[in-house]
Amino acid sequence: MPFTYKRTVRFQDTDAAGVVFFANVLAICHEAYEESLEASSINLKDFFTNPSVGFPIVHASVDFLRPMFVGDKLLISLIPQKIGVDKFEITYEISVSQVIVAKAITRHVCIDVSSRSKQELPEEIVQWLEANHRDAEGAERRKSREIM
Amino acid sequence: MPFTYKRTVRFQDTDAAGVVFFANVLAICHEAYEESLEASSINLKDFFTNPSVGFPIVHASVDFLRPMFVGDKLLISLIPQKIGVDKFEITYEISVSQVIVAKAITRHVCIDVSSRSKQELPEEIVQWLEANHRDAEGAERRKSREIM
Amino acid sequence: MPFTYKRTVRFQDTDAAGVVFFANVLAICHEAYEESLEASSINLKDFFTNPSVGFPIVHASVDFLRPMFVGDKLLISLIPQKIGVDKFEITYEISVSQVIVAKAITRHVCIDVSSRSKQELPEEIVQWLEANHRDAEGAERRKSREIM
Amino acid sequence: MPFTYKRTVRFQDTDAAGVVFFANVLAICHEAYEESLEASSINLKDFFTNPSVGFPIVHASVDFLRPMFVGDKLLISLIPQKIGVDKFEITYEISVSQVIVAKAITRHVCIDVSSRSKQELPEEIVQWLEANHRDAEGAERRKSREIM
Repeated sequence: MPFTYKRTVRFQDTDAAGVVFFANVLAICHEAYEESLEASSINLKDFFTNPSVGFPIVHASVDFLRPMFVGDKLLISLIPQKIGVDKFEITYEISVSQVIVAKAITRHVCIDVSSRSKQELPEEIVQWLEANHRDAEGAERRKSREIM
Repeated sequence: MPFTYKRTVRFQDTDAAGVVFFANVLAICHEAYEESLEASSINLKDFFTNPSVGFPIVHASVDFLRPMFVGDKLLISLIPQKIGVDKFEITYEISVSQVIVAKAITRHVCIDVSSRSKQELPEEIVQWLEANHRDAEGAERRKSREIM
Repeated sequence: MPFTYKRTVRFQDTDAAGVVFFANVLAICHEAYEESLEASSINLKDFFTNPSVGFPIVHASVDFLRPMFVGDKLLISLIPQKIGVDKFEITYEISVSQVIVAKAITRHVCIDVSSRSKQELPEEIVQWLEANHRDAEGAERRKSREIM
Repeated sequence: MPFTYKRTVRFQDTDAAGVVFFANVLAICHEAYEESLEASSINLKDFFTNPSVGFPIVHASVDFLRPMFVGDKLLISLIPQKIGVDKFEITYEISVSQVIVAKAITRHVCIDVSSRSKQELPEEIVQWLEANHRDAEGAERRKSREIM
C-alpha cells in the first residue's frame, strides 16, 4: 500500500473564496512527505534544519479537481520514485471520502548545502525511496490482479 | 481533563532562524480550537464558511518560553471560558515532552456577520463552553487534591 | 512591456532551510496577479470576496532555478493568455538582479460560484487579458527586432 | 515621524470568513519591522538567516478593531523602544484610510543563537532603536503642541 497521511482542512488553509488557497495544497503534500520520512525513522529536525545535505524542490505541479472546505478530512497518498543518482520525484493524490480532489508532483534534487552542488542520494533516502516505492508497487499489482 | 490536540511541527511552520515563526504559534492554537469545536459535534464548514453568526477574535496574545523545531510533537491544551453574554476567551498551553513551550490567549466576540453587530452566544457555543470548561475545572480540582 | 510586480522576500516566506518555502513562490505569483487586476481597475474585494463569478485555479506548476533569501528584491513579470471561452493561463517569471530564479504557470477557469459550473469569461477579465497580453506581445516583438 | 510601511491585503492573507486571518496580522507587523531594519541599512539576509546573534520574539499581542479585506491598503506605523540591555519592544498601529484597524506589540530578547543565552543588544540594533524612537518622539511632541 502507498504511504497515506490524514489531515483535516484548517481555517487558516482557506481564503476569502471559502476554499483551500491553491498554494496551500502543495504545502499539505509536503506535510505528507515529512510524515513518510518520519515513518522511515528519519529525524525531521536533523533532516530539515541546517543540514549539510539537502533535497530542495526544483519543480512542483498540482491539478485541482474539486474544492476543499474547512473541516474536510483529506487523505493524502504518496509514491516517491528515484529518477537519477541525485534526483527523486514524489506523486501525491489527495482524496476526500474516496473522491480524488487534487493530484500533485514534487521533484527534488540532492545537494551539498554549503556549495549548492548536486550530489548522490545518501543511503537513508535511498532506503526510504525503496521502501515506499515497493509498497506502492505491491498495491498497484494487487489492484491489477483484482481487475483481471 | 482539558481538551488536548496533538500536532507535529511542519517544515512550513518554520522560518530561516530554524524555529517556528512566531505568528504560526497562534495559528496552531486556532487549530486546537477548531478540533475542540468538532469534538463537540459542531460542523466546521458551516461554522467557519460564510456563517450568519461569527466569532471573530478581538484580542490575542502569546508568550514564547522555548523555541519549537521541525518534527517537535506539540501537545496543545485548551480551556475556554465565557466572559460575557457575547464574549468568550480561550487559554492555550503548548508543551513538548511535558515542558511548556508557549502560552496563548484568544478573545472572541459573537457577531451577526451581515451587520457586524454583537449578539448573544448561541446555544451550541454555550454548550461547548460549558463542556470544555467543566472538564478543565475537574482537572484543576483533582490536581489540588493531589497536592494536599 | 509585460506587467511587473516588485516584492521583497519576507522572513515568514522562508523555512528552516533558510530559503523561500517552495509553495510560497506560487503565493507570491498570485500577488502579482492581484496587483495586475488592480492595475486594470478591478476592485479586489469584490473580485475575491464571495463573488458570484470566480476564477479558481485548476492547475499550477513552478520551476525553481535558484534559491531566494530573506531581503531578496524579487521582480515578478506576468503574461496572461486566454485559452478558451471560459479559461485563461498566466505565465510568471521571477528574477532577482536580472537573473531568473523561478518560472510558474497558473491555469484558471471561470465558474458560476453557486453552481460551480463553467461560464464564459466576463467582459472585465477579457479586457484585462487583452491589455496585458498585448503589452507583453509588444515587448516580445521589440525584443526580436533588437536581436535582428 | 514614526516609520511607516504600506501593504496591500492579499488573497492569501484572508480566510473563509472573508477577512484577514487573525495571526496574519502579526506577520504583517513583522514585515514592517523588517522594512524598518532595512531602512537603517541592516542587511536582512545576514540578520535573519542563521545569524550568530538573534532577536526572538518572547511575547506578542494584538487587538483587532475592524476587519481587513482583500485589497485594503494598510498603513503600518511602528515605534520600537529599548526596555533593557538585552530587550526591546515594538508597538504597531495598522490603519486603513486613516482609521485604526489593529494595534500590536512584539517583545524581543537578544540572544547568542548557539547557546540561546541572553546577551547585550549589539550596536546596529541600538542605533536602529534610537533613530526610530527619536523620530517617533518628535512626532508625539509635535502632535501635543498642535493640540495646545
